Amino acid sequence: MASIPATWMRGGTSKCWVFERADLQVAGKSLDEVLLRLFGSPDERQVDGIGGGTSTTSKAVILAVSANPDVDVDYTFAQVGIAENTVDWGSNCGNCSAVVGPYAIERGWVSAQNGTTAVRTLNTNTNQLILQRVPTPNGAIERTGSQMIPGVPFPSMPVGLGFLNPAGKTTGRLFPTGHPVDELTFDGSPVRVTLIDAGAPVVIIDAATIGLDGLNNPAAIDSDSVLLAGLERLRREAAVRMGLAATTDAAARAIPKVALVARTQAGDDADFAVSMLSMGRLHPALAITGSVALTMAAHEAGTIVRELSRELVGARAGGGSTGRASQSRPDAQLTMRTPAGLVETFYEDVDGIPVVGAVRSARRLANAELLLPEVW
Amino acid sequence: MASIPATWMRGGTSKCWVFERADLQVAGKSLDEVLLRLFGSPDERQVDGIGGGTSTTSKAVILAVSANPDVDVDYTFAQVGIAENTVDWGSNCGNCSAVVGPYAIERGWVSAQNGTTAVRTLNTNTNQLILQRVPTPNGAIERTGSQMIPGVPFPSMPVGLGFLNPAGKTTGRLFPTGHPVDELTFDGSPVRVTLIDAGAPVVIIDAATIGLDGLNNPAAIDSDSVLLAGLERLRREAAVRMGLAATTDAAARAIPKVALVARTQAGDDADFAVSMLSMGRLHPALAITGSVALTMAAHEAGTIVRELSRELVGARAGGGSTGRASQSRPDAQLTMRTPAGLVETFYEDVDGIPVVGAVRSARRLANAELLLPEVW
Repeated sequence: MASIPATWMRGGTSKCWVFERADLQVAGKSLDEVLLRLFGSPDERQVDGIGGGTSTTSKAVILAVSANPDVDVDYTFAQVGIAENTVDWGSNCGNCSAVVGPYAIERGWVSAQNGTTAVRTLNTNTNQLILQRVPTPNGAIERTGSQMIPGVPFPSMPVGLGFLNPAGKTTGRLFPTGHPVDELTFDGSPVRVTLIDAGAPVVIIDAATIGLDGLNNPAAIDSDSVLLAGLERLRREAAVRMGLAATTDAAARAIPKVALVARTQAGDDADFAVSMLSMGRLHPALAITGSVALTMAAHEAGTIVRELSRELVGARAGGGSTGRASQSRPDAQLTMRTPAGLVETFYEDVDGIPVVGAVRSARRLANAELLLPEVW
Repeated sequence: MASIPATWMRGGTSKCWVFERADLQVAGKSLDEVLLRLFGSPDERQVDGIGGGTSTTSKAVILAVSANPDVDVDYTFAQVGIAENTVDWGSNCGNCSAVVGPYAIERGWVSAQNGTTAVRTLNTNTNQLILQRVPTPNGAIERTGSQMIPGVPFPSMPVGLGFLNPAGKTTGRLFPTGHPVDELTFDGSPVRVTLIDAGAPVVIIDAATIGLDGLNNPAAIDSDSVLLAGLERLRREAAVRMGLAATTDAAARAIPKVALVARTQAGDDADFAVSMLSMGRLHPALAITGSVALTMAAHEAGTIVRELSRELVGARAGGGSTGRASQSRPDAQLTMRTPAGLVETFYEDVDGIPVVGAVRSARRLANAELLLPEVW
């Protein structure tokens, strides 16, 4: 009977099973077959396996020491099918990414520094380098942290996830049109937007300019079909302007995303408020790729975000504070209010390369040995 | 940081975390506090713990070698709160019970025999002795089984769960009225029922006598509010007849249960069909206590079940086949068709004591070491 070592970790708002690549080899079985049987798939309850029966609890992260001298750890994210007998390798998961740095330090792949330890990770699904910062106050991972994030009711260790040089990964340019602000049409009238490609292509709109009084009632947005249809038309127009589609009819459903932003009141903990739309519906929180786009936008002069954000991102860090950046986890420089709560993000310049991301949290839940049936 | 050894097992249609009692002691914390934090409760997603965010995946079983010479293993079932910060110790779980026998054998608490190994377990929540039969074909647990049960899409090891002497645990008598058949009222007309107390108090009705044409359409029953209301009046009348309540108004919501039974067609794999009602709604499958009551009823002359069942339960085993009973797992003697699929049950006489139960399946999913935060 095969037994496979694995570690169960929470990363952000997901639960992720962490494997080392060599451990997943089972004679006569493909990697997909091994993962599916371990997780108990296909079965909508995954009752005979380690999967949790929901998309956020049917996730695996497969790690290996990198052969690239500029990278410490290569990692591959797998969204393991639940009722479907398939594994999706097509995207990364920002939440599960946050387990990689802590795991690499505890495993001894990266030496813990006194203070904060940087782990250079490469997500192989997206070929994105992510610089992780993990607190190691006494030269070791600490198991008690105070970081709170939306969707997790317990405090734990913060993990900074910095996307290296995220601009233009899809279109080749941070501002695909060449401008920090463009004019599109909403409800027959012109509306100013920022079209940006960082982490993912995103259309950013000031909620006030489309008649919304702030973003305090996300449910009202999500139930307003006229509003949603108007934003969908605008999104398709943006797809064409950004060079993502030849015509509005040909625009993809998933990109660009739409971000509605709003000014916050004096005294609010957040620099601005945001609600994102994904696949035509309100996102309950904020995907990490969306937070990268908004943070880049806040850093750049002339964008819609800069106009209404209270904080100039990167101003505190300055343009070349590589000493600070490489020795401590980035301070949260920007705080966004999302429908789920506050998200903290940062922008840094590390040796001339922008590193942009968000602060997540992670916790090791269990060290495990997973058991496969003798025959399956 | 505390680390706690634990084993994750599927028992029947539940996922159960198995602990040994001594391992759950954490200085300064109560047992409830330790379980709740391990499971990540209170949190409807249990995202920072080992709980699965559903009632069937937020379960613990705590084992200890018994001090009673007639018992091998004492076990206590805990239903760990999900959004609630409480642990419910008030009932047993038939599904999780099925992990106890296999665990005890693999742990070396009970020596595996060549063929089948019997494990004498005591559920401390209910003070019920359950004789478990686990196949050990070569003197060891085998990890590949062929037992299918409703709700689990993978074959695995069968575990026979035999309730010792389950008659009259609530009312003092197998037939609280003294008769295998009584007459109650449904829709203004008399209807013949069996009132039985075995595993749990149950009212058994032939579906045909209340105008139902078999039990092939459970959804139609569950959506027929007039039918359900009539059965609820009958159930309350049964509560009074069984001595469970002084008046119909005073009848408890949970007991007695109602079982609708129906004849099966020639060629059907099942001896009869059953749909149970629980808390006024159709049960999606069949609780193990319900299967005990129905199997006892099938064994007794003159009951509603005996009238329509194709098989005389216990006839094959005979009245005193203790040799067979103690050396092999009980054959499935009775097969019931439930809304979820076929359930196999048995009735045995072991040294003069009736042992009645059902066949479940179990599988060890993972050996684990669970990690608690340093401070919580």
